[in-house]
Amino acid sequence: MEPIKVGLLGFGTVGCGTYTVLRRNQEEIKRRAGRDIEIARIAVRNPAKAKSALATADGADGAAASTVAVTDDFNAVVDDPSIDIVAEMIGGTGIARELVLRAIANRKHVVTANKALLAVHGTEIFEAAHKNGVMVAFEAAVAGGIPIIKALREGLTANRIEYIAGIINGTTNYILSEMRDRGLDFATALKAAQALGYAEADPTFDIEGVDAAHKATIMSAIAFGVPVQFDKAYVEGISKLAAIDIRYAEELGYRIKLLGITRRTEKGIELRTHPTLIPAKRLLANVEGAMNAVVVHGDAVGTTLYYGKGAGAEPTASAVVADLVDVTRLHTADPEHRVPHLAFQRDRLSDTPILPIDEVTSGYYLRLRVADVTGVLADITRILANTGISIDALLQKESEQVDDHGKGETDIILITHETVEKNVNAAIADIEALRTVVSKVTKLRMESLN
Amino acid sequence: MEPIKVGLLGFGTVGCGTYTVLRRNQEEIKRRAGRDIEIARIAVRNPAKAKSALATADGADGAAASTVAVTDDFNAVVDDPSIDIVAEMIGGTGIARELVLRAIANRKHVVTANKALLAVHGTEIFEAAHKNGVMVAFEAAVAGGIPIIKALREGLTANRIEYIAGIINGTTNYILSEMRDRGLDFATALKAAQALGYAEADPTFDIEGVDAAHKATIMSAIAFGVPVQFDKAYVEGISKLAAIDIRYAEELGYRIKLLGITRRTEKGIELRTHPTLIPAKRLLANVEGAMNAVVVHGDAVGTTLYYGKGAGAEPTASAVVADLVDVTRLHTADPEHRVPHLAFQRDRLSDTPILPIDEVTSGYYLRLRVADVTGVLADITRILANTGISIDALLQKESEQVDDHGKGETDIILITHETVEKNVNAAIADIEALRTVVSKVTKLRMESLN
Repeated sequence: MEPIKVGLLGFGTVGCGTYTVLRRNQEEIKRRAGRDIEIARIAVRNPAKAKSALATADGADGAAASTVAVTDDFNAVVDDPSIDIVAEMIGGTGIARELVLRAIANRKHVVTANKALLAVHGTEIFEAAHKNGVMVAFEAAVAGGIPIIKALREGLTANRIEYIAGIINGTTNYILSEMRDRGLDFATALKAAQALGYAEADPTFDIEGVDAAHKATIMSAIAFGVPVQFDKAYVEGISKLAAIDIRYAEELGYRIKLLGITRRTEKGIELRTHPTLIPAKRLLANVEGAMNAVVVHGDAVGTTLYYGKGAGAEPTASAVVADLVDVTRLHTADPEHRVPHLAFQRDRLSDTPILPIDEVTSGYYLRLRVADVTGVLADITRILANTGISIDALLQKESEQVDDHGKGETDIILITHETVEKNVNAAIADIEALRTVVSKVTKLRMESLN
Repeated sequence: MEPIKVGLLGFGTVGCGTYTVLRRNQEEIKRRAGRDIEIARIAVRNPAKAKSALATADGADGAAASTVAVTDDFNAVVDDPSIDIVAEMIGGTGIARELVLRAIANRKHVVTANKALLAVHGTEIFEAAHKNGVMVAFEAAVAGGIPIIKALREGLTANRIEYIAGIINGTTNYILSEMRDRGLDFATALKAAQALGYAEADPTFDIEGVDAAHKATIMSAIAFGVPVQFDKAYVEGISKLAAIDIRYAEELGYRIKLLGITRRTEKGIELRTHPTLIPAKRLLANVEGAMNAVVVHGDAVGTTLYYGKGAGAEPTASAVVADLVDVTRLHTADPEHRVPHLAFQRDRLSDTPILPIDEVTSGYYLRLRVADVTGVLADITRILANTGISIDALLQKESEQVDDHGKGETDIILITHETVEKNVNAAIADIEALRTVVSKVTKLRMESLN
């Protein structure tokens, strides 16, 4: 049978990784897919650079080096009638969006690792794919090599999914692991991560939670049968996280992880990315370094967890190539019934609202500094009780500083039971108004992940 | 569109769980599958009992109770022209095999949770399915609700899989967790597990490793593209495991788990189930109680892990229903190219041999009792060195007993670097021949799972 022909748009880390994996495991993949999968054309801005990368990838047996055609004309690849699948490896939401839509209009299947594109323009892209009867596969967009899209969309179809909580950004998990292990502050840990290549020169998308929120948005849509709605996602990164909160959390039996969380509630769907305390004994709390892991809780299956590398050339290529094989195996299935892009049939998506962060339910970690005088704790606990918030754990750290009058200051750390965020915010405003409270209240969210 | 009609064979724990999950999540599942999935007929030995279980499952709204037809004529369901999918929930390799083959001959798709059937008769069943152009789906056969078959067969298709190591029997993991946590011996922990329903009245299949070996056999075939060959699997359970080895392993930084392991080597494929030391810091070592988890290492993706409940009515039903949805979504795809039963195209399976246990490569934990005299350790290490075995860790426990002549005995515990099993066996024979060695050598295997 004829090879299935792939046109690659972009030849950076993931594009080159895809080429390398397909080449190295060609025989094994053919035994699985029943057809050769061939990268027939590559479009890049700088063909000379790509040719040099190709030669390097071909390695020692360069004599038999690939004859894959390289061009700087992206449209030529997307319009090429001999191409069956376009693999978009450019990234971003500009030219990538145009080329993906053009490929779809040309009735080509699309494989992409572009989470930003799908989180923001998913609805438009999936609609176009439906009209043209093609598949858009995106396993590589979430958690790299971990087949989490497949688990959610196919493996757990029996379940009413209750929540997903994932470490889905390796850069921030690496930084948080270093902050905890070595007692570093954020800025120092970031610099170390940059020096080792775990963080980019401009790390904003990673450290501010945007990348994780893109991925959480995609998982939320698939889990609950709603459209992708990145504009409704709450996004908070780790750049303001203080080393002292990592230590205090540890004393209380928790680890702090940047989690992408999406949860079904009676009021609507929660979709939020932020630093989160989780009990140290959970498997998820023990996912260290640049590794990713996603917890999915379904009503029938209970808690499941998926762990692996979330980034890097070959782990991401593992997901891209799996999508290429999937398209090869399944493009002949009835388009109305084969696996829907967002797990649910497109005409059966729900308009359940995404809740604003004020309406979210969570446990809370509160740290504040108080004057070391009688009655201050009573005032704080009274405010919390009046707001209907009960306390799960409390830590009072002995005075470190003593002022001229012999009076000290103390850190108080509280962990609350689950409550609605707006209640906690109201309580915090009241607490900060107390004369004995000498700092702003630091607030972090806590999930028990039972 | 017409509902897809399912005939259920058997209505025990898993059958009833499947009915319950399908009923409770009917709307959600229909939104995903695009069609209703309806259990149209049930065949059981005792229809009265099944009807009573159905009424219980229908619960409070019993008024709207199911009108599903129940019969004790299994063939009538398998031969019913209105049935699209037969779900075999009987278990065992007798009548289940006959009914599955008959359903296939009738061109019905089959969903089964029956690992024994597939591990022993898989080749015959998949061949029949191929001839009749039907799908045989078996996600529930391995690790219950964890979608590990899907991960191996589809999610990781890009990879040359190097090894799989899984906690794939909840009963034994529960017993091992209790032995470690509470310092129990095997017999006491087994009784406790039976009292709580974690172990059956006749626990042989679980505790002797047969159940785990069935599952490892299926994963091995899918990972490496070889036929299922349960007769070649090495099977060793936990019934002879001594509490003291769990404690010594702990002191050396290891946990003991019953693992199903399959690994690709230059000489052939390892396929073995046995108690195994693994470093305590690995996620897999921290999978406690009746939970399951599978580590898969691929050349592109690196190490991945899948965790969840491996048994129970609803976790298993989660996998059965996922298979029903899969068949609903994909039965229209070209049978020659849709996902092959064993991940690889049937005419591209490999005849790579399964290695006998003597040829397996592993680290080893050796415990022996020696007379507390000068030179005994030198003798032992000389024997190991002569056999080319190097020592990774050594623990010598001070004398506990002192004999009439004032001489004591000591436990020596060694962990070796990786070596071939027959070399270790030869060394053990020489060590046991030493006059200063007063016990048999206890041998356990160790995997670092790097």
